[in-house]
Amino acid sequence: MRCIGESWPMTKERAYFEAVALKQHGGLCPEHVPEVYHFDRTMSLIGMRYLEPPHIILRKGLIAGIEYPLLAEHMSEYMAKTLFCTSLLYRSTTEHKRAVVEFCGNVELCRLTEQVVFSDPYKVSEYNHWTSPYLDRDAETIREDYLLKIEVAELKSKFCERAQALIHGDLHTSSVMVTPDSTQVIDPEFAFYGPMGFDIGAFIGNLILAFFAQDGHAGQGNDRKSYKEWILKTIEDTWNLFHQKFTALWDEHKNGSGEAYLPAIYNNPELQKLIQEKYMKELLHDTLGFGAAKMIRRIVGVAHVEDFESIKEANIRADCERRALELGKTLLKRRREFVSISEVISAMKHIQS
Amino acid sequence: MRCIGESWPMTKERAYFEAVALKQHGGLCPEHVPEVYHFDRTMSLIGMRYLEPPHIILRKGLIAGIEYPLLAEHMSEYMAKTLFCTSLLYRSTTEHKRAVVEFCGNVELCRLTEQVVFSDPYKVSEYNHWTSPYLDRDAETIREDYLLKIEVAELKSKFCERAQALIHGDLHTSSVMVTPDSTQVIDPEFAFYGPMGFDIGAFIGNLILAFFAQDGHAGQGNDRKSYKEWILKTIEDTWNLFHQKFTALWDEHKNGSGEAYLPAIYNNPELQKLIQEKYMKELLHDTLGFGAAKMIRRIVGVAHVEDFESIKEANIRADCERRALELGKTLLKRRREFVSISEVISAMKHIQS
Repeated sequence: MRCIGESWPMTKERAYFEAVALKQHGGLCPEHVPEVYHFDRTMSLIGMRYLEPPHIILRKGLIAGIEYPLLAEHMSEYMAKTLFCTSLLYRSTTEHKRAVVEFCGNVELCRLTEQVVFSDPYKVSEYNHWTSPYLDRDAETIREDYLLKIEVAELKSKFCERAQALIHGDLHTSSVMVTPDSTQVIDPEFAFYGPMGFDIGAFIGNLILAFFAQDGHAGQGNDRKSYKEWILKTIEDTWNLFHQKFTALWDEHKNGSGEAYLPAIYNNPELQKLIQEKYMKELLHDTLGFGAAKMIRRIVGVAHVEDFESIKEANIRADCERRALELGKTLLKRRREFVSISEVISAMKHIQS
Repeated sequence: MRCIGESWPMTKERAYFEAVALKQHGGLCPEHVPEVYHFDRTMSLIGMRYLEPPHIILRKGLIAGIEYPLLAEHMSEYMAKTLFCTSLLYRSTTEHKRAVVEFCGNVELCRLTEQVVFSDPYKVSEYNHWTSPYLDRDAETIREDYLLKIEVAELKSKFCERAQALIHGDLHTSSVMVTPDSTQVIDPEFAFYGPMGFDIGAFIGNLILAFFAQDGHAGQGNDRKSYKEWILKTIEDTWNLFHQKFTALWDEHKNGSGEAYLPAIYNNPELQKLIQEKYMKELLHDTLGFGAAKMIRRIVGVAHVEDFESIKEANIRADCERRALELGKTLLKRRREFVSISEVISAMKHIQS
């Protein structure tokens, strides 16, 4: 935890998992993962592609109000390829189990996620903080909300127990570097075999935070209205393009070595359609649940996001954060009621208005 | 696959996993797991307690119509202790991940289960057989049932991806040796970290098969009516006692090192109750789903059970099997509608009558 300092040291081994994940994800999606030239495990040294200017951290771009017209296209491509190709939709169970074992060693960083995402925000913790006193009651409400706690426990179990695919593990908007033409995913030190929705949710959840922060960045001459529309469209496109690319990969490889749905049983157009609809519906619900957990923890947990932190006036910041918190709680508790991403967009607009 | 012969060789390593599982489960429940005295990995040799006469294989006892008044008590004890204590309800995520890795090596036997339980019965396979011609149409119906295939795919994913606890992996009634006073669980060569419901379902599913086979064993002077009542009671008691013992262990250790539900978040009587109800409801549904898959595969898959095979008249055997198949299909497709084990008993009685 860089933000806590020396009292919370991190394992040196994280560089190993970062390097392995960069190589594996890079092999699957070289367009959006920087190349690793050299890794020295003893030195924990990664030699990799320099992401030259004008590449900047996506979060900085979102705060500055810069539109990235290819962002949804690129991120959906990255997520579809990396998640599909490391799952049992593409792999044999033998390959899968071997790969799972390799990343089980990354337990320290998984435990960090368990604590900061699924636990600390729901209890009194010395590390938690929020925009006080404005959100004092909101933070307390979260600790008292049984339904919220029950739902976050279900997600935590899924995070700890379900080895669905090799996920990035920390796919927020500071793990992505961008130019108008290029999108590069970095920092997969939290990578392990976990639920796909944790990655998709991290990315979409952080776009939602960026959306609700815009009112705090609006100034003279720029009300950020059209930028907010662009963020909404990017969220909607990210999921819809992901859905399209992921199911296209599935169709392409339905007679391959993936062992989840053997062709001898499932290769029938009507059945294939039903199977995919069920899978994608559950993946949307996971995405919304994990995304919501990631939003909540950024407002009342240990590590906050610059989107809100850079809003100087505490009362304005608190208003922005409270709206994000409201949506996060709704998504976490009622995610199964959402049948499409456009309903999420509607809920965002409703809260914003 | 002993029943296929040399054309389907099994890994020598299975003895290693059997010995490790016997030791670990034996450490948690020594009353119902025979002691291992010596294991030689090179020789694949296990030196373990001799289960002296009158111990017999439970399945033989069920076919002979012998009542075991302590069976539900003992099996619920074994399952509650072994499953609870190897899950995140009792363990830290660090211990859990280390243990998961150890058993990932047992991939060959997991793959065998995937094939014979979750795949072969739902497709044309050279290994499948059934009581022909009586069940020809029934076997075909299974291969044409979209909903059944969708549901079995969900269970297969859970089996492959969800490391919930160290399960026995093959807990049918031939993996249990009994006397009226003693119940000993043997042969955990399929052990790995998987879904708890796979074990509970295997046991209950095989009791259900034993129940439907009774009409084939009824003879002059013994209509097996009271024995069938005893089996029904044993099924009901097994789940209800398991539920009671499992939640008692949970209550006892709720302030322990289990990381699924941290006391600082969940230690509140009302919330604890809600959490347990949700957990046990989902576990019942998993149990019924996996139990149903195990029943179906024993009737139209590669390996059958002596309960039915020992019924000489094919038409009588087919009638018994068809009833079991009917219940299996109902449980697999509609398991989420069952809220208690007594509803399963009612469904069994309804099909039987």
